[in-house]
Amino acid sequence: MKNTFGSAVSLTIFGESHGPAVGAVLDGLAAGLPVDADFLARQMDRRRARGDGLSTARTEPDEVEFLSGVLDGHTTGTPVTMLLRNTNTRSGDYAKTAALLRPGHADYTAFAKYEGFQDARGGGHFSGRITAAAVAAGALCELTLRGLGVRVYTHIAACAGVQDAPLSSAAGLVLPEPEPGHFALLDPAREAPMQAAIRAAGAEGDSVGGILETVITGVPAGVGEPWFDSVESELAHLLFAMPAVKGIEFGAGFALADWRGSRANDAFRMRGGQIVTATNHNGGVNGGIANGMPIVFRTVVKPTPSIYRTQDTVDYTARADAELQIKGRHDPCIVPRAAVVQNSLAAFGILDLLSVRYGTLAQKHGLPRPEAE
Amino acid sequence: MKNTFGSAVSLTIFGESHGPAVGAVLDGLAAGLPVDADFLARQMDRRRARGDGLSTARTEPDEVEFLSGVLDGHTTGTPVTMLLRNTNTRSGDYAKTAALLRPGHADYTAFAKYEGFQDARGGGHFSGRITAAAVAAGALCELTLRGLGVRVYTHIAACAGVQDAPLSSAAGLVLPEPEPGHFALLDPAREAPMQAAIRAAGAEGDSVGGILETVITGVPAGVGEPWFDSVESELAHLLFAMPAVKGIEFGAGFALADWRGSRANDAFRMRGGQIVTATNHNGGVNGGIANGMPIVFRTVVKPTPSIYRTQDTVDYTARADAELQIKGRHDPCIVPRAAVVQNSLAAFGILDLLSVRYGTLAQKHGLPRPEAE
Amino acid sequence: MKNTFGSAVSLTIFGESHGPAVGAVLDGLAAGLPVDADFLARQMDRRRARGDGLSTARTEPDEVEFLSGVLDGHTTGTPVTMLLRNTNTRSGDYAKTAALLRPGHADYTAFAKYEGFQDARGGGHFSGRITAAAVAAGALCELTLRGLGVRVYTHIAACAGVQDAPLSSAAGLVLPEPEPGHFALLDPAREAPMQAAIRAAGAEGDSVGGILETVITGVPAGVGEPWFDSVESELAHLLFAMPAVKGIEFGAGFALADWRGSRANDAFRMRGGQIVTATNHNGGVNGGIANGMPIVFRTVVKPTPSIYRTQDTVDYTARADAELQIKGRHDPCIVPRAAVVQNSLAAFGILDLLSVRYGTLAQKHGLPRPEAE
Amino acid sequence: MKNTFGSAVSLTIFGESHGPAVGAVLDGLAAGLPVDADFLARQMDRRRARGDGLSTARTEPDEVEFLSGVLDGHTTGTPVTMLLRNTNTRSGDYAKTAALLRPGHADYTAFAKYEGFQDARGGGHFSGRITAAAVAAGALCELTLRGLGVRVYTHIAACAGVQDAPLSSAAGLVLPEPEPGHFALLDPAREAPMQAAIRAAGAEGDSVGGILETVITGVPAGVGEPWFDSVESELAHLLFAMPAVKGIEFGAGFALADWRGSRANDAFRMRGGQIVTATNHNGGVNGGIANGMPIVFRTVVKPTPSIYRTQDTVDYTARADAELQIKGRHDPCIVPRAAVVQNSLAAFGILDLLSVRYGTLAQKHGLPRPEAE
Repeated sequence: MKNTFGSAVSLTIFGESHGPAVGAVLDGLAAGLPVDADFLARQMDRRRARGDGLSTARTEPDEVEFLSGVLDGHTTGTPVTMLLRNTNTRSGDYAKTAALLRPGHADYTAFAKYEGFQDARGGGHFSGRITAAAVAAGALCELTLRGLGVRVYTHIAACAGVQDAPLSSAAGLVLPEPEPGHFALLDPAREAPMQAAIRAAGAEGDSVGGILETVITGVPAGVGEPWFDSVESELAHLLFAMPAVKGIEFGAGFALADWRGSRANDAFRMRGGQIVTATNHNGGVNGGIANGMPIVFRTVVKPTPSIYRTQDTVDYTARADAELQIKGRHDPCIVPRAAVVQNSLAAFGILDLLSVRYGTLAQKHGLPRPEAE
Repeated sequence: MKNTFGSAVSLTIFGESHGPAVGAVLDGLAAGLPVDADFLARQMDRRRARGDGLSTARTEPDEVEFLSGVLDGHTTGTPVTMLLRNTNTRSGDYAKTAALLRPGHADYTAFAKYEGFQDARGGGHFSGRITAAAVAAGALCELTLRGLGVRVYTHIAACAGVQDAPLSSAAGLVLPEPEPGHFALLDPAREAPMQAAIRAAGAEGDSVGGILETVITGVPAGVGEPWFDSVESELAHLLFAMPAVKGIEFGAGFALADWRGSRANDAFRMRGGQIVTATNHNGGVNGGIANGMPIVFRTVVKPTPSIYRTQDTVDYTARADAELQIKGRHDPCIVPRAAVVQNSLAAFGILDLLSVRYGTLAQKHGLPRPEAE
Repeated sequence: MKNTFGSAVSLTIFGESHGPAVGAVLDGLAAGLPVDADFLARQMDRRRARGDGLSTARTEPDEVEFLSGVLDGHTTGTPVTMLLRNTNTRSGDYAKTAALLRPGHADYTAFAKYEGFQDARGGGHFSGRITAAAVAAGALCELTLRGLGVRVYTHIAACAGVQDAPLSSAAGLVLPEPEPGHFALLDPAREAPMQAAIRAAGAEGDSVGGILETVITGVPAGVGEPWFDSVESELAHLLFAMPAVKGIEFGAGFALADWRGSRANDAFRMRGGQIVTATNHNGGVNGGIANGMPIVFRTVVKPTPSIYRTQDTVDYTARADAELQIKGRHDPCIVPRAAVVQNSLAAFGILDLLSVRYGTLAQKHGLPRPEAE
Repeated sequence: MKNTFGSAVSLTIFGESHGPAVGAVLDGLAAGLPVDADFLARQMDRRRARGDGLSTARTEPDEVEFLSGVLDGHTTGTPVTMLLRNTNTRSGDYAKTAALLRPGHADYTAFAKYEGFQDARGGGHFSGRITAAAVAAGALCELTLRGLGVRVYTHIAACAGVQDAPLSSAAGLVLPEPEPGHFALLDPAREAPMQAAIRAAGAEGDSVGGILETVITGVPAGVGEPWFDSVESELAHLLFAMPAVKGIEFGAGFALADWRGSRANDAFRMRGGQIVTATNHNGGVNGGIANGMPIVFRTVVKPTPSIYRTQDTVDYTARADAELQIKGRHDPCIVPRAAVVQNSLAAFGILDLLSVRYGTLAQKHGLPRPEAE
């Protein structure tokens, strides 16, 4: 369904980078869920550009206007529509280069798909700007999950060649709370070198990518569906909606290609009356279904395609080879800002799967939790 | 929708390993498409176990019975239902160990999800046996794609530590035809060492995994949808339906985490009047939409979880730690057999996306192709 | 999605009248639901033709084979596939007349849609035979609803000009149990005149239609969704899948065109601590959502299009006017057999809506019911 | 999917009567379709209340703001989001009576469903106000259909006891263009008596309902899908989204209950090289699929539930019987305004079905039309 996804809860995304607004319609939330404006503002702030040499100079206030579905600080049970006006647009930057296809970006595919009628300004519908809507919707999902004892946390596992500390995925894991104004890192000491590496690439007119790792705790065993609504299918479907994501892996992921089964298998063990696994190489998912362990996945975020170096390209209109010198305002690295987008889409996906199994009403009234024995 | 997926074309999968049958309902095919029984048999044969020390001793004839939607060798336009009877089942092997959860397998998640009512025999609905239905359905999709000038090819990029030759993803690529009875390899000389490495692991009561790489040629630029029905979202959703797949990457994939934009971007160039890219690090997809270049992705297939070594586990009924010694018949490696499953699911996904853009009728009447200038 | 429908529970229907089989895949049932073979057989028997001058001489044993999703008399939680083999087919009757379009039937639309590749034998996919699969699936849904305190009952409100006794739709209504081998009538005395009227039409080479009325009790207030998943939208969508249904109305239905609001409005009243309505002209649905009163709707079933009288038509191949003299075996009236089909589709629809609100698990563990005060 | 519907084209509706806005997201339109602001304004005007004793004194300017998907007067191919601000709201009218359930309205079901968190002001999400969004979206669909040679026309077949002239449904029918500022009637002479009858009911503090009839021409034979995406299923699903609609019938509809097959069957005839039917009792649909004749259906619109007469009801909070005296501004009859809503939803539904068969691109590039022979 193109720009709509979900089963019990559904998310519709709309907008263009330099159009009037971007937004989201989130349907299937129970009535009476608290809408915490501070939490929402904090999530929006985490995605916001700062014009600090790390991210684009285009900064937006990102105030979310609720058009429907929220009254007196609570959801009403009907579709929640969230609007973010675009205010800081300079379309002049783009008009000149519309026919000069930016390598790595969706300029050419938009031409091919929309036959010249696409809104090409600022990347249009393919701009990272659209992800602001996903963050707004995801914030509500994440709040709801917290009410159910489910936490979602994403950190920058690697960026510009700098690694974060490794994240445990053991049973009983307690997830940190991201700190406002800082990179989502387990080890705060990695922030300075990571920023330096990003700035160095930017200074050379280039860009860098990285790895985002997400951990989800508190999902009861049995959530997810076999075959096409597996936890992995649902999350991968959502994460690949981010245009910069080019790969996703669960648990030990691609490393499993070189392992033997005796290492890859996670032994089951009884711990405090609960069934857990001694290791978590399967990332909390067996046969597509949550096994109660932390759900762990990583995505690769490619380097920002908009770089300032001169690039070979094609003039679409002239149908001739050409050179491109990009101007405008671009992030040398979107990984730090993308962390909260990934977190948001993952929160939506898990809320959807939980709601299929336990019903919409359970979002408000809680999940059945087996007592520890 | 759990065991159903697709927009313009939809695929429903059903069955259990030791139940009466597995099967698929494929809906949304145009009427009048040829159903080539030989091609179907060849695809089924590629997935078939051979009991040769490389794959399980459980061999099934895998004859596909058409229950609906096919008449006189052509599709009728109504749902095509394909049935594969299970004939070679020895459920006695499993009854004893039902409560002893097999690490890495879906035994525990099935218990959690289905509250003890699951069909646990042979892995039930989570068995690789179910993929036979996907291959049958995918064979029809692949045939239809061939009629449209679209080819899908999957090879074993790596298995048991042995690499295949690298696959080009350049414009104008001509894909090979897999040879019956052989591993899907670009370099036939790799088959012997790969088989030897698999047998070696099996001889130690262990198992191995690998990497499957798929290339799709002939998809016109403009196919796929922004956000949730991106080419990457659709294919990832489908591929993660295979329980053993734990990761997927497009183009240069996870390697992009360490690249700079100047390397990752694929420069556009005019070639014979067509727009192509000089490199293909984005795997034929920009902004979620096909750019006309070969679509390239890789999945990681984890080592078979059923191994003969003694493993730590839990007795679900006794809720106590236990040891497990698996018997039964299991593949030391499913990668070679999974190649055709991956190919089949990818063929289905691409046919679905093409049909959204060009309509169901185009499956029979052809895609509009721009003439080379 | 063409031959698949549903949100939390989904139903896929396949098959042709003279193909190997018809069948259904029912996905989204909880695990552990009892599958009562006797109840299923009774429902199938209610749809079965008897060759008694009231229904076609083509009788089928209608034994349901479970291909997946059921083990030891209970659902396993995975897709339930139910197969009904076609045994009593005489395709020779149809081959001659394939190009002579039967008025009122789908012969022409099948030609237009499937471009000559349709399975035209016995009406193919448009035959009433396909409804057998819906009854099999609906029987499981109805059984599940009974376990939740929800009853669905359909009677022949009118047929061949003979009316049944009126059905109450008041609060506290207790629904009757249809008697095997008899028309679904509130007043058994109407059966003889109704049969006589049907036989009279059949003797004249003609056919008759009627009205089927369904009442559903025990659905908690609050079930159904605003706008596109309203109780009325869901049920109407399903009922119009029956090719002979040409209209549906809820509550007072079309009569409301001539009423005033003061009559049409159902006053709310407290009864035994529960909110009920004094009348039920809205058929248990306000704003698309169940109000706790019996849900009441009626469909019109058109007269069987296959009649023995000579009819004007067109020879599709010759593209010329022609005359048609239908042979073969046809029901002079399908209304009595259609009652159980309607009941089955309604049961499926209500189970789907209940499952969206309360979750899949509630199918087994029960609905929250407010205690009477 | 609750407030989203459609396959190839999808429509999401949001908003509350006294919230900030109502709106629609329309996804799946081809790029490059002209957006005719005058046509849109004319359609919005047809739904607008006039405060003339026929409709509510709450008038809204109904200016549609495009938030996405439209640039330079054409669609861009991405989701079209249309916003209508609510400006003329007097919520004070409602606050007092929130607990006094209005009979015939969704007050009680909203309480039951949303557990007291619903936006009850002005009917909230169940208000007819929401239909403004459907009209905005439908206007774009209707414009697109006109470009494809498909016309949709809805007239007031009956209202307040006054009938319009009958509408032909013969082949070759040319549909009228509704006149701005007038009731949608074939016979303009019926407008005065119809208005008088509505005013008379209003003067007595009461309300009236009616019948809306829609005819769709130019749909090629073969559009629509068997079983669950039949033309009838799709249109019924959409029309029952209007809370006041309580019934729908195609062709001769409920009258068929008393007809014989020899009368109900529409004989096929050759006319100018095309296959047509001599009568159109099946409303242009056989077996769920368009047969090329005008598609004809009627809905019943119940009398407005908000009437000024004192009514028996229940105080939801006190859980006690009570009396209700409604104030506020209400239409004594919504049928004239609902005509354009019905037309809009039907236009959307047909565009969706056409797009499934012919592809999204065909919306712009046209349908294949057989030449007359």
